Amino acid sequence: MAYDVNNPTVLAIDTSGPVAGCAVLKDGRIVHQIAMNHGLTHSETIMPAVDAALSAAGLDCGDVDVFAAVAGPGSFTGVRIGVCAAKGLAHAVGKPCAAVHALEALAMNLFGFDGLCCPILDARRGQVYCAAFDMAGGMPARALADAAEPLPDFLARLPEDRRLAFVGDGVPVHAEAVRAALGDRAMIAPASLRDLRADAACVLAAARPETWVEAKALRPIYLRAPQAERERKKRVESGERS
Amino acid sequence: MAYDVNNPTVLAIDTSGPVAGCAVLKDGRIVHQIAMNHGLTHSETIMPAVDAALSAAGLDCGDVDVFAAVAGPGSFTGVRIGVCAAKGLAHAVGKPCAAVHALEALAMNLFGFDGLCCPILDARRGQVYCAAFDMAGGMPARALADAAEPLPDFLARLPEDRRLAFVGDGVPVHAEAVRAALGDRAMIAPASLRDLRADAACVLAAARPETWVEAKALRPIYLRAPQAERERKKRVESGERS
Repeated sequence: MAYDVNNPTVLAIDTSGPVAGCAVLKDGRIVHQIAMNHGLTHSETIMPAVDAALSAAGLDCGDVDVFAAVAGPGSFTGVRIGVCAAKGLAHAVGKPCAAVHALEALAMNLFGFDGLCCPILDARRGQVYCAAFDMAGGMPARALADAAEPLPDFLARLPEDRRLAFVGDGVPVHAEAVRAALGDRAMIAPASLRDLRADAACVLAAARPETWVEAKALRPIYLRAPQAERERKKRVESGERS
Repeated sequence: MAYDVNNPTVLAIDTSGPVAGCAVLKDGRIVHQIAMNHGLTHSETIMPAVDAALSAAGLDCGDVDVFAAVAGPGSFTGVRIGVCAAKGLAHAVGKPCAAVHALEALAMNLFGFDGLCCPILDARRGQVYCAAFDMAGGMPARALADAAEPLPDFLARLPEDRRLAFVGDGVPVHAEAVRAALGDRAMIAPASLRDLRADAACVLAAARPETWVEAKALRPIYLRAPQAERERKKRVESGERS
């Protein structure tokens, strides 16, 4: 089926973290956005939200040029819900998908910030999913590679001569530790810019048609193996039968 | 009725421009947000959206500490819809209201930007509603006073030694003119940060409990007289009976 790469209509879905969200970009404008953060019931809430967003915008799936999903890093279950939803919708109408990187989408919240934007996601097990981007040019330019590591390890990797701004669902958990370690060099994004927003995923997917893939090729982005696999590996290594 | 000023639950309503939106801030998190931009039917769309947001968050009006409305500048009819909605809800449960300035809420989209944030709203009649704020400290610090004026007059008031970033619904209309006049000094916010978002209004209202007023005292912010009044004045001045 034909689709427009120059001025695409984008549906973006994000269930990779505590927020379940979707947004529609059409003719360069965000025409609809929903963001819900009241408990992890993404599998129940996301499809009604997608349906509401498309109907309100007067669109059906066939009008969408690309289905974007925030593909991680993030919650394993959450990432799979979003990726599967986008994949299913795209497959049904023969349109491409786009995998949007969660940390990059978060960095989009700090347009024009002249220091480094540092998204941190609560990865449990004493770790954060983290990276750093330069946003001074408007689009995220990679400054530090993705990692799943303890917060102090991340803070130690950050350059000492830049202002730093923190976004992401790791902020409520780690803001005090960040302030204690970095003092005035660290800015903490306000609640309105702290969470990943599906509208940022729309903009990233629209800007990069070279990343669009066939629906069946859409893959999650994992920074470490899921817990089930880690436990299986441990059992195998310790000689148990798996 | 009692309400919490230190960690308030905020419902913010914005119908002041092309977007109809509402958001709920609770325990320092945006728990729900809806933004709709598909034609000026705000009077029909906003109350169902408010209802959906509160229900999804498991709240009723009595749980809200302050009802914020984006009070202008903006569309006369739109501003009145939002102000009346907030006022009605707040009056019903005996809670205060907060008037949020539209240009200040837009500036919140550029957290940490080290230049000047320049919100421009399409005011029709060849004018923009405009102002400039310094966002380097995180919250909007006023740099230029509000005005309703032709875009070139606004651009001429901007300092020559700062980077400038433009947000607001005037951007799609005026981006080319801004770029032609200012070249590389001007950054244009991406679609995801271009529009006023009710979550920013939540954050501003929560940060400034000293601005909360009784419901009946909530007033729109107008930068010029409504068209009906301008026409009446013209008739009076030209000697017609009004």
